[in-house]
Amino acid sequence: MTAYTAVVTVRLKRGVLDPEAETTRQALSRLGFGLDELRAADRFEIDLDAESEAAATERAESMAERLLANPTIHDYSVDIENR
Amino acid sequence: MTAYTAVVTVRLKRGVLDPEAETTRQALSRLGFGLDELRAADRFEIDLDAESEAAATERAESMAERLLANPTIHDYSVDIENR
Repeated sequence: MTAYTAVVTVRLKRGVLDPEAETTRQALSRLGFGLDELRAADRFEIDLDAESEAAATERAESMAERLLANPTIHDYSVDIENR
Repeated sequence: MTAYTAVVTVRLKRGVLDPEAETTRQALSRLGFGLDELRAADRFEIDLDAESEAAATERAESMAERLLANPTIHDYSVDIENR
């Protein structure tokens, strides 16, 4: 078994309104910062042991499908790092 | 001016309890997933125009210091991508 860290990034699908991100964008603007769009995402770093990188990827993807992401409104991506 | 995307990742400092991450870790365990630690972080993707990569980094760092991160409990990192 090898020790990996799976980084699962969960973001709202394009077109889904994100009031929290919009509020943050406006607050930064009011503070005088120049910026265009702002998107917020959740990042999960999961330490796990797996037979291979492919096995770690598969497990992280099913974690996202089963719990971390709501397929109706979220997209997710998985990156695997050696620990 | 050049178009950049600043990715600001805000995470709790080591040692600061994260009940939400712990609840997520336990839920994944109960679903039968094998995992060790789980850390959650907020990821902000900020589209901005700046004179240089250094200027974009500096602006994103002060956005983190002023609003996105609470220096008492958070660490943050900034990565700059060309848009």
